[in-house]
Amino acid sequence: MATVIFDVNETLSDLSALSAAFDRVGAHPDLIETWFAGTLRDAFTLNFTTGPQPFQDVARSALLGLLSQEDHLTVSTEEAADTVMAAFAELPVHPDVPEGVRALARAGHRLVALSNGSVENTEQLLERAGLREEFALLLSVDDAGAWKPDRRAYEYALHTSGVQPRDAVLIAVHPWDLHGAHQAGLRTVFLDRTRALWPGVFTAPDQHVHSLLDVVLP
Amino acid sequence: MATVIFDVNETLSDLSALSAAFDRVGAHPDLIETWFAGTLRDAFTLNFTTGPQPFQDVARSALLGLLSQEDHLTVSTEEAADTVMAAFAELPVHPDVPEGVRALARAGHRLVALSNGSVENTEQLLERAGLREEFALLLSVDDAGAWKPDRRAYEYALHTSGVQPRDAVLIAVHPWDLHGAHQAGLRTVFLDRTRALWPGVFTAPDQHVHSLLDVVLP
Repeated sequence: MATVIFDVNETLSDLSALSAAFDRVGAHPDLIETWFAGTLRDAFTLNFTTGPQPFQDVARSALLGLLSQEDHLTVSTEEAADTVMAAFAELPVHPDVPEGVRALARAGHRLVALSNGSVENTEQLLERAGLREEFALLLSVDDAGAWKPDRRAYEYALHTSGVQPRDAVLIAVHPWDLHGAHQAGLRTVFLDRTRALWPGVFTAPDQHVHSLLDVVLP
Repeated sequence: MATVIFDVNETLSDLSALSAAFDRVGAHPDLIETWFAGTLRDAFTLNFTTGPQPFQDVARSALLGLLSQEDHLTVSTEEAADTVMAAFAELPVHPDVPEGVRALARAGHRLVALSNGSVENTEQLLERAGLREEFALLLSVDDAGAWKPDRRAYEYALHTSGVQPRDAVLIAVHPWDLHGAHQAGLRTVFLDRTRALWPGVFTAPDQHVHSLLDVVLP
């Protein structure tokens, strides 16, 4: 049996549901990916300069930067950001998540969530999906002193879970997250729903699946 | 008189010229911003895990990931990446660059380029624009042991230029770069050609201009 650590944003939650909010405020839904990559770029910058800041603050700051350059907003930049951030707090999980999570719990694994976002956001996401009780622990890097993929974030999760790295596995859709987890000694499962090429600059994952239903753990 | 340190990618070079290459291989030109943000996200990940890697490698790796998810490529993913990377090596400078650079040099400032990319790439960019001789030094973080915005990158540039932080100023289009430079003690000029909001999570720049022609240094 393993301690299965789930990334949360995009791994459990489905960001594509934000398209409607971008549409509603007159912003291009193609911005979603740019926004999320830019949020991480800015958060990592803070991580190794002045120190980490909460996900909501970094995400909103990056969002305002992008929205301020859109030509056809139907509301003010601030209102547009409010609308998108509100939608972010109401995301659904991906279709494969409920059955995939329950199967891993049923198999006797201990499930932990480790997010660069807040515990509150993870808790509400899992409650909406009826999955809160499947998770033993909901953790945030807010309590780790550094965002993933900084080693301290994984070590915080291992320490709080009382588990050795070799008995823990990270499931995530983000190669940068799995690369960091591998350096901290965890096993890694790349949940690759979009069939993207693995980036050659990162350590390859131990397992590569296209659905949470395909994860098989010893 | 100051030592004026220029960021290179997007600050001097004009990435919008990549649109034609994306079009040619059947990929959406909107990917350019996502690609560049993703390249930085992945590079920063390497910076604080297993160590920095060359810009070309990280950029190509991130590009392959994006292109592998495009549905209408007219060539293989590898060929598409080759085409885009070749166009990246042939970028022009922004229209305000030649006159802006010459004005600062004429005013007696010493000009230095500091890129997360290679010295070779900077050298070719400046030679194509007829601006190579305006720069005293062309530097790359390849020789610093860390990418910007890591403090070591700016300290390397200061040390190599033989200048104190207070006598140096960084000109860049990227808030994350200016935030890092400020922490290292440099003065900062935000070259904001797209009139984007400054991200509230970063230290505000000392000067905020919309064209290189508007930079005024003591």
